[in-house]
Amino acid sequence: MSPDGESRAACAARDAADPLAPLRDQFVLPDGVVYLDGNSLGPLPRATADHVRDLIEHEWGNGLIRSWNTAGWMDAPQRVGDMIATLIGAAAGEVIVADSTSVNLFKVLTAALGYVRGVDARRRVVVSDIGNFPSDLYIASGVAEAAGFELRAVRRVDIESSLDETVAVLLLTQVDYRTGALHDLAGVTAKAHRHGVLTVWDLAHSAGAIDLDLAAADADFAVGCGYKYLNGGPGAPAFVWVNRRLVDSVDQPLHGWIGHADPFAFSSAYSAAGGIAGFQCGTPAVLSLAALECGVATVVAAAPFGGMAALRAKSIRLSELFLRLVAPVCDGFGLEVISPADPRLRGSQVSLTHPTRGYEIVQALIDRGVIGDFRAPDVLRFGFTPLYTREVDVWDAVEHLRVVLHDELWRDSRWAERGAVT
Amino acid sequence: MSPDGESRAACAARDAADPLAPLRDQFVLPDGVVYLDGNSLGPLPRATADHVRDLIEHEWGNGLIRSWNTAGWMDAPQRVGDMIATLIGAAAGEVIVADSTSVNLFKVLTAALGYVRGVDARRRVVVSDIGNFPSDLYIASGVAEAAGFELRAVRRVDIESSLDETVAVLLLTQVDYRTGALHDLAGVTAKAHRHGVLTVWDLAHSAGAIDLDLAAADADFAVGCGYKYLNGGPGAPAFVWVNRRLVDSVDQPLHGWIGHADPFAFSSAYSAAGGIAGFQCGTPAVLSLAALECGVATVVAAAPFGGMAALRAKSIRLSELFLRLVAPVCDGFGLEVISPADPRLRGSQVSLTHPTRGYEIVQALIDRGVIGDFRAPDVLRFGFTPLYTREVDVWDAVEHLRVVLHDELWRDSRWAERGAVT
Repeated sequence: MSPDGESRAACAARDAADPLAPLRDQFVLPDGVVYLDGNSLGPLPRATADHVRDLIEHEWGNGLIRSWNTAGWMDAPQRVGDMIATLIGAAAGEVIVADSTSVNLFKVLTAALGYVRGVDARRRVVVSDIGNFPSDLYIASGVAEAAGFELRAVRRVDIESSLDETVAVLLLTQVDYRTGALHDLAGVTAKAHRHGVLTVWDLAHSAGAIDLDLAAADADFAVGCGYKYLNGGPGAPAFVWVNRRLVDSVDQPLHGWIGHADPFAFSSAYSAAGGIAGFQCGTPAVLSLAALECGVATVVAAAPFGGMAALRAKSIRLSELFLRLVAPVCDGFGLEVISPADPRLRGSQVSLTHPTRGYEIVQALIDRGVIGDFRAPDVLRFGFTPLYTREVDVWDAVEHLRVVLHDELWRDSRWAERGAVT
Repeated sequence: MSPDGESRAACAARDAADPLAPLRDQFVLPDGVVYLDGNSLGPLPRATADHVRDLIEHEWGNGLIRSWNTAGWMDAPQRVGDMIATLIGAAAGEVIVADSTSVNLFKVLTAALGYVRGVDARRRVVVSDIGNFPSDLYIASGVAEAAGFELRAVRRVDIESSLDETVAVLLLTQVDYRTGALHDLAGVTAKAHRHGVLTVWDLAHSAGAIDLDLAAADADFAVGCGYKYLNGGPGAPAFVWVNRRLVDSVDQPLHGWIGHADPFAFSSAYSAAGGIAGFQCGTPAVLSLAALECGVATVVAAAPFGGMAALRAKSIRLSELFLRLVAPVCDGFGLEVISPADPRLRGSQVSLTHPTRGYEIVQALIDRGVIGDFRAPDVLRFGFTPLYTREVDVWDAVEHLRVVLHDELWRDSRWAERGAVT
């Protein structure tokens, strides 16, 4: 029993009563593993291996080229996009699966800047968070420079005060990949719009974890990742959403045949497909889309149990439990929580920091079957994915951390030399 | 026996003596099917289903996030790129697998124009073939317009005379997707270079079918497709090659974290990885890469039998046989060959045309198990992929065409109304 009266038995009892508990059976989870890294790579859905094998053996092997038409391959980007739409507050036909998150960000950011240039040439700045995921900053820097805009990456606390009539676009990742800090998507979008600023949201750490309503927020553009909370497998294709009021007024720069209004007319001139279909470029990645479809289905399966709102509530319960349990265990070891304490300001992960030994601690936990991850220079990340994480998993993870800190590393001479408060 | 003394038995005898014949066993080919569409979608390699299943179940399912390091996922783009390099006359480390052909074309064309702008600002034109694959023209048009260049898409016969000191880049697909007409890659590159023009080659219908030597030709940039002659599966990732003398002097515009010199340092500033690694952008598509690796391996497997030169020689034998057999069958039905008669000017496909009924003829052949394809408005394509196509397949395909033309369609009243010479 922990100091505040928690116990593993109490966790197990609450797990047994959890209406979302059966959703865990959708996944293959190795014995002896507590998987707290679904925020980086979702685990394997039970349906995926057979589904992909069936596609390979029957649709590709037997159907060959005919399956482009007979097996729905060409429709997969829109079909899976429609499934994702139900998770992020978008309508059918508004989301398409294509390319990678970074490539999609290139498309929407270029499209957004081209649009702004046409309506208000005084706006020459892209604002982002200096702590944004680096790939987003790389893409934004390249796009801004090529388009003659300035990328202004500011501290998180300075974002709102940076919005004015010189700003074209605010680019943010809703959940910070290191700290788990969560932006209020609707609130920030409203503030941006009051300054005439368009919003581009990266939902990489949100889709499948946070209850989102892009329509209610009236956001402008969004991209997101298929292999984190959507469980699509390593390097799964990404998705892109554009607000209906903008989608036919903007031009994404990757003019490929699959984004053409009539690809099989083989016209030599480009004419973009209407709506989000025009945000495609090359041939759909059929095998990867099949795995992603299985992954997204595991999240859609929560709909009868309350959907994303219920998943979000469970995610908060899990991370609050972790925070309660972990505080006394970390005490005196120089390990500190860097995620926001208020669950309304936190995504589905809790991050700790240690000034020197974060990597070792994460490795020691992995050796004990507790899989989180380390992000340089000093962040230990633990994701609490509500589809398959149980309260007993949280309990066990903290107990393993206790052993790592109090027994294993404490006995390590280098650790002892530094003492507990480095 | 055909008019010129050919017979199915003679074809079968030559097949039995073909040293490349065992390579066919690498594929799952459905019974009763003559597959002549490997130029559009390669068939299923026997190894793929198990390899992908193993990756899904063990590397993803059990290894989870750890497999990024332990299972070689992060190295896959370079590992498969190195395999492709052996097929196209490139060196190890010069080819990377990433994204789609169209996205890669966007990268290299933007990189090429940026480079030319820096060294010779008078060059403002991109020359291409008006008959190039439409997606290439769409990408080129978009890139040229954004960069302030002019895309000049000319007739094939006018390409060489269009090269002068105003031209920055010549963009060509080596094998025409409709006619199968083949550019002499080395010869055209040399002519372009004499005018100071950089070459961008799309090898979509070449890689795995034509014996290529990019190094000997001293070409500048190349992209290619994974799902045609490389048998990587529907929507497989594509590849990109840049000449060593240029690769570190050009900047591709899709600055994503996987193209960074040190992705896991999570630096907020982009610094491109040296060499071809910098032409990556987002997270590698691991599942699709696994299938592509199996597909490329089927072509690499020809190395002990003479490699691409032997495959090319067999491809020519097959298409020459088809041309000899098909001529008397087509005679009087308005079906004509539009592929070059000289095999040195032809890729691994033979195309026919019919002014009005091409689609019906292709459909009738597919109904009989002979799978070619139709490209609007009037082209019937038949690919002769030397890895798995036999002379008896060519014979059987022509016999089916004979039945379709002489018996099935001839009895069709609409066909009869038009007569045989429409």
